[in-house]
Amino acid sequence: MSNRVRAVVAGATGYSGRDLIKYLLKHPQMELVGAFASRSGEPAPLSAIHPQLTGLTNLVCHPFDESAIAKLDPQVIFLGTPNEFSHEVTPALLEAGATVVDLSGAFRLRDASLYPKFYGFEHTRPDLLEKAVYGLTEFVREELRGAKLIANPGCYPTTIIVPMKPLLDAGLIDLKQPIICDSKSGVTGAGKTPAAGTHFVEVSESFKSYNVFKHRHTPEITQGLGLVNSPGSLIFTPHLLPINRGILSTIYAKLKEGVTRADILKTWQEMFATSPFVRIFDGSQLPEIKFVANTPYCDIGCALDEASGQLIIVSAEDNLLKGAASQALQNANLALGFDEGAGLR
Amino acid sequence: MSNRVRAVVAGATGYSGRDLIKYLLKHPQMELVGAFASRSGEPAPLSAIHPQLTGLTNLVCHPFDESAIAKLDPQVIFLGTPNEFSHEVTPALLEAGATVVDLSGAFRLRDASLYPKFYGFEHTRPDLLEKAVYGLTEFVREELRGAKLIANPGCYPTTIIVPMKPLLDAGLIDLKQPIICDSKSGVTGAGKTPAAGTHFVEVSESFKSYNVFKHRHTPEITQGLGLVNSPGSLIFTPHLLPINRGILSTIYAKLKEGVTRADILKTWQEMFATSPFVRIFDGSQLPEIKFVANTPYCDIGCALDEASGQLIIVSAEDNLLKGAASQALQNANLALGFDEGAGLR
Amino acid sequence: MSNRVRAVVAGATGYSGRDLIKYLLKHPQMELVGAFASRSGEPAPLSAIHPQLTGLTNLVCHPFDESAIAKLDPQVIFLGTPNEFSHEVTPALLEAGATVVDLSGAFRLRDASLYPKFYGFEHTRPDLLEKAVYGLTEFVREELRGAKLIANPGCYPTTIIVPMKPLLDAGLIDLKQPIICDSKSGVTGAGKTPAAGTHFVEVSESFKSYNVFKHRHTPEITQGLGLVNSPGSLIFTPHLLPINRGILSTIYAKLKEGVTRADILKTWQEMFATSPFVRIFDGSQLPEIKFVANTPYCDIGCALDEASGQLIIVSAEDNLLKGAASQALQNANLALGFDEGAGLR
Amino acid sequence: MSNRVRAVVAGATGYSGRDLIKYLLKHPQMELVGAFASRSGEPAPLSAIHPQLTGLTNLVCHPFDESAIAKLDPQVIFLGTPNEFSHEVTPALLEAGATVVDLSGAFRLRDASLYPKFYGFEHTRPDLLEKAVYGLTEFVREELRGAKLIANPGCYPTTIIVPMKPLLDAGLIDLKQPIICDSKSGVTGAGKTPAAGTHFVEVSESFKSYNVFKHRHTPEITQGLGLVNSPGSLIFTPHLLPINRGILSTIYAKLKEGVTRADILKTWQEMFATSPFVRIFDGSQLPEIKFVANTPYCDIGCALDEASGQLIIVSAEDNLLKGAASQALQNANLALGFDEGAGLR
Repeated sequence: MSNRVRAVVAGATGYSGRDLIKYLLKHPQMELVGAFASRSGEPAPLSAIHPQLTGLTNLVCHPFDESAIAKLDPQVIFLGTPNEFSHEVTPALLEAGATVVDLSGAFRLRDASLYPKFYGFEHTRPDLLEKAVYGLTEFVREELRGAKLIANPGCYPTTIIVPMKPLLDAGLIDLKQPIICDSKSGVTGAGKTPAAGTHFVEVSESFKSYNVFKHRHTPEITQGLGLVNSPGSLIFTPHLLPINRGILSTIYAKLKEGVTRADILKTWQEMFATSPFVRIFDGSQLPEIKFVANTPYCDIGCALDEASGQLIIVSAEDNLLKGAASQALQNANLALGFDEGAGLR
Repeated sequence: MSNRVRAVVAGATGYSGRDLIKYLLKHPQMELVGAFASRSGEPAPLSAIHPQLTGLTNLVCHPFDESAIAKLDPQVIFLGTPNEFSHEVTPALLEAGATVVDLSGAFRLRDASLYPKFYGFEHTRPDLLEKAVYGLTEFVREELRGAKLIANPGCYPTTIIVPMKPLLDAGLIDLKQPIICDSKSGVTGAGKTPAAGTHFVEVSESFKSYNVFKHRHTPEITQGLGLVNSPGSLIFTPHLLPINRGILSTIYAKLKEGVTRADILKTWQEMFATSPFVRIFDGSQLPEIKFVANTPYCDIGCALDEASGQLIIVSAEDNLLKGAASQALQNANLALGFDEGAGLR
Repeated sequence: MSNRVRAVVAGATGYSGRDLIKYLLKHPQMELVGAFASRSGEPAPLSAIHPQLTGLTNLVCHPFDESAIAKLDPQVIFLGTPNEFSHEVTPALLEAGATVVDLSGAFRLRDASLYPKFYGFEHTRPDLLEKAVYGLTEFVREELRGAKLIANPGCYPTTIIVPMKPLLDAGLIDLKQPIICDSKSGVTGAGKTPAAGTHFVEVSESFKSYNVFKHRHTPEITQGLGLVNSPGSLIFTPHLLPINRGILSTIYAKLKEGVTRADILKTWQEMFATSPFVRIFDGSQLPEIKFVANTPYCDIGCALDEASGQLIIVSAEDNLLKGAASQALQNANLALGFDEGAGLR
Repeated sequence: MSNRVRAVVAGATGYSGRDLIKYLLKHPQMELVGAFASRSGEPAPLSAIHPQLTGLTNLVCHPFDESAIAKLDPQVIFLGTPNEFSHEVTPALLEAGATVVDLSGAFRLRDASLYPKFYGFEHTRPDLLEKAVYGLTEFVREELRGAKLIANPGCYPTTIIVPMKPLLDAGLIDLKQPIICDSKSGVTGAGKTPAAGTHFVEVSESFKSYNVFKHRHTPEITQGLGLVNSPGSLIFTPHLLPINRGILSTIYAKLKEGVTRADILKTWQEMFATSPFVRIFDGSQLPEIKFVANTPYCDIGCALDEASGQLIIVSAEDNLLKGAASQALQNANLALGFDEGAGLR
C-alpha cells in the first residue's frame, strides 16, 4: 500500500485538469486517487476523455459528488472547476479536512464586493477570502506551509506579478505613468467548451484584443501588485493568439530617475535566487512563448531606453502550467511539506 | 433602376454564404437583393454577422421567410442551408419560379433510398432528384442552360470527379484495383457552428481522419464517376487539416496496360480546353493548397510509376469556392445565360 | 492596342510584388507590361515563381535591367525591391520619366542622417527625400496628384499614423505620457527570403517581440505623427504573430482633460469621410485581423477609460495590401489622375 | 562521481538532438557528458542554441571533433547528424569502443547500391550495413542487447512498419493489391536549416505532397516489411502538414479472404503485448496526431470494409520522439542492458 499523499482532481475534463493529472501520474510523493467532472454526465475513463492519457492510467472520471470524494479520503484536492462551482463546493471540502488548491478565481480577490461585477455572483464567504493564500508561489512560500485553502493565481496575473512586484516593492517604478500590460494568450486560456470565439476558423490566421478595460484579471493584478489604492495606475489588455498554449506579456513602465537596467536585473536575481521556475533573461535575448511552452517556467527579461527611462518587460509562461497546473503543484508541494519542484522536473 | 438579375442568398450566416455574397456584391449581371438565415433569430446587418463585409453592403439578414423572399421577386436563389432545410423549402421556391442553386446535399443523389442512411432523413421528392442538374459545371454545361434546380456538388467530390471522370470515361483506368481517394480538408468544411471537433485547440497542431468508410460524400463520388454498379471500386477517406480553407486529394489508381502520363495529360487537356477554372499542372510541380486558396480554381496534376502502372493524382481547390460558392456562380451564370466566369475574376 | 497606362513591377518575386501584380492584372486603367526581379538570376514565368498566378498571366519575370525597362516605356514603376536597391535605381528611373512608387524605406525619411543608423547605408540623394511624397494616401491626396516619386509607407506605420495623426492634429492627446504602440505582424512582413526567424517551426505555436526600441519604423512613425521634436513621446514595439498576413496595433495614449470617445469618433469621421479604405468601428466591436486580411482596408476603433482618460486604439490592416500593395495602387491612381479605388474593389 | 553511463550527442543543434538532450538530462542511468555540432562554427552553450534548455544544463556545444569526444570516453554516442556525416564519422567512433546510435539514414539500408540513388553518396562500408541493427525496437529486442551500431529508423517508416509488419508476417495481407501509405508529417521532419519549403508563409494555411514516388524512405519501408523482392507492392507518398511535430499515416491494404478486424487486433495485441510504447486503438476511435505529440508512443488503429476486404490503418507518432529521439533511447537502453523505457516516462 502506497504511503504517498492521496490527491483528487475535480474539473478533470478541462485542459488544466488534464495537465495536472499528467503531473500527478509521475509525482513521487502524490498519488492520484480520484478524478471528477462537473455534477452531471456519465462516468468515463480518463483515457477516453483525454486519449493522450491512454496507457498511463485506468482511472475513471466520475460526476462530482462530495460523498464519493470523502470516501477517497484525499489529503489534497485540486479544483479545476468553474468559478461559481469552486465557490460552492470549497467550504465542505475544507471541513472534511483536505487541503484545497483552487485553480478558479473564486478565492483570489480579498475584496468580496468585486465578485458581482467581475465574476457575476455574490461571494458568500468573505471569511475564506481572508484565509485563502494567494498562491503566487515565489512570493508566499512561508504562508503556503500548512495552508488549507490556496487560491491559485490566474494565468495572465502570473506573467505580470512575477516581474513587476519585485520592482514595485523595491520602489524602482515611477507611478505617475500607468503601468501598461499588453498580454497575449493562446486559446487553451479560453477553456474547452466550444464557442464561436474558439472555433478554429475564427481564431486561425487572426488576432484580436478582447475584454478591453473589463477583464476580471485586472483587479487580481492590481491586488497582486499592491496597487489597489492607486486607481488608474495599471492598464491590462488581453489578446487572443492563434496558438494552443502560452502567454506573453509586454509590460511598459517608467523607471524612477537614475534606475538602470542593472538595478532591474539585480532586483530580480535577488528575489528569485532560490526560485527554480523563474528564469531571468539577462542578455539581449528576450523571452518567447516557444521557450516556455510545455514547461513550468515563467521567463522574464527587459529592455530599457535610458534617455527616457522607459522600461519594457517581456515575460512568458505556459498558461496551463505556470499559469495553472504546475503552479498548483508548486503550491501543493509547499503546503504539504514537499520540495517545491517535486513532480515538476 | 437596375436591370441586373435579382439574387437572394439563404444561409447567409455561414462561410459559403458569406463568400457567395462577396462574389455577388461585385457581379456585373446579378444584384444581391436579399439575405436570409435560418428560421429563427433576429434580423442583423450582414456587416455585423460578417464584419469583413463592413462598408461593402448595408443589407440586413433576416430569418428565413418564404413570403419575404417572394416579395423580393428573385430570379435566382442560392441555398447555403442545411441538407434537411434545403429539402424542405426548395419545392415552394421552385414553384414561385426562381432558379434554385442548392449548395447542400439535398438534391445531389439520384437514388432517394440513400438519404436515410447518409443524410438521416427520408427524401420526399424523388421527382426533383431526377430533375436536378448535378452541377459539376465542367461536365454539364448543356444541361445547365435554363436549369431550374441545380444541386451544387460537394467540396470533396469536386476534387475527385474533376480529374477522375475524364480518365474513367476514356477507359484509361483498370478497376481491378480500387480507386483510393485520400482527401484532406480545412476546417471551414465543417461549418461555422461551434463543436468539440472544430475547437481551435482540438484542431491546431493536430491532424486526423474521420468518418472512415462512412462519409456521405462517398455515394456522391461513386455516382459522379459512374461507379454506382461497381461496388468496392472506390475508397474515400476524409481528413481534417489545421487550416481554414482548401482541400487536397491524393488519388491512387491503376492504369490499364500501356497508358502513359502523356495520355492522362492529353485527356485532361481536351476535356478542359475551354474550362476557365480547371488548371492542369503538366510539369513536375504538383498542386498545393496555397495555389488555390481564395481562388475559384480546381488544380490537377499527376505522377506515374511506369513500371507498375500506378498513377497518383493530386488535386486541390478552395472548398468554399470551387467546392461551394464559385461553382454555384459558375452554375447560376450558365443557367441564366451569362458568361460562366462572370463575377468570378 | 490598349491605351491603358503602362506599368512595371520590380521586385516581382516578393510577396508585395505578387499582390501588386494580382491587382494590376485586373486594373481597368493600368496594364502590367513588365515584371523584374533583382539583378541576378534567370528569367522565369511569373506563374512559375507564383503558381497562384497560373492561368492569369504569361508574363516572364526578368532580372532587373534599366535598359529593358526603358524599352517598355512605362508610365509607372512599382519598386518592391530592398531598401538599398531602390535607393540605387530610383534616380535613373525618374530621369527616364516614369512615376516611381517605391515600397521600400529608401525615400520615406526626410532626415538623410537617419539612414546609416536605421537602414545601414549612407543616403546620397537628400534632394529626392525632400521631393518624395510620403504616400499615406488619406493625408496627402493633393500632393499625390502628378507626383513623380512616392515613398509608400511602411506596414506598421500605416496602422499607427492612420488613427493617431488626426487625433494629434486635433490636439486631443496629452503628450506628457508617451504614446505606446504595441504592434503585432504576420510573417509576410519579414519577407520571402528563408531565415531562422521565419522557419515554420520557430514561428508556429510561438510569439515574440523583436527589435525592441530599435525598429526602423520608429523614426518613420514619429515623422508621420509630427513628433520628431518630441523625444520620448512614442514607444513602438513590434511582435511576430504565427499567421501569414495582417497587422494589429494596440495603441495607448492619454487624452487631454475632458476629451470624450465621441470626440475621437467625430474627429475620425470627419477626417475619413471620403476615404474608401478606412473603416471606423464606432460600436463596441474592435478591429480584428480576420476582418481585414486580403482586403485593402485599415480598420480603426477605440475604447476609453473615462475615469483616467486613458485611450486604447486598436487598428488592423493586411500588411501586404493597405500596408504595401493596395496603398501603392491608391497612390499611383491619384498620381496618374484615376479614381483612388480603381482596381482595388 | 557518477557511475551512470557516459553519453554524447552529436548533431546537438537540430530538433532531434535537442529532444534527445531533454531526455538524457533526466535519464536515471545515463549522463550527458558532451554535445557537439557539425565541424565548423563556434562553441556555444546549449541553452543559447536551444533557450528551452535554459536552467536545465550548463553544457557547451562544441564543433564536432573526434579527439574531444574520445577524451570524454563515452559509452554511447547518439548521432543526430546528416547522412553523409554519420557515414564518415561512425567507423572511427566504433573503433574507439562506443555504442553508436545513428539517427540518420547512413546505416539503415542493407543494400549499399541504393545509397547513390537515394542518398546521393557512395557507401564505403557495406560491412557495417550488415552489422548494423535496424532499430525498430519492437521487432529486434534480442539483436539490440549488446549491439554496437544501431541504425535508428526513419520517422515515416516507423509509422508504417509498426502496424504492417505483424500483419504481413502473419500472412493476413493480399499483396495482389499494392499497400498504399499516404503519410503526413509536421515540419520538424524537414530539419532546422531554413529553406523556401520550410518558410512559415509557404507552409501555413497550405498542404502539399512531395517527393512523390521518390522519397528515400521508400526502400527503407520495403526492406522493413520484407517486400524487397516484391516490386510494385508498396506505394509511399509523403505530405507536409502545417504543424510542428507529428506524423499520421493512412495505410490502405487488401486483406486475404476471411480475415477479420478481430484478427488484425489480435495479431497486434500479441505482437505488442510487452511493448510499452505502442498503443492499440481497439474501439471506434482512431489515432490522431494530438494524442501522440510530445510523447514516445506510436498509436495504431484500423477500420475494415468487410464486404470488400479493404483495410484502412491509421497510425501516428511524434516524428521527433518515436520517429527519432525516444526510439533512439529505447534502443540505447536495450543495447546497454537497461529497462527499455528508462528515461522515457
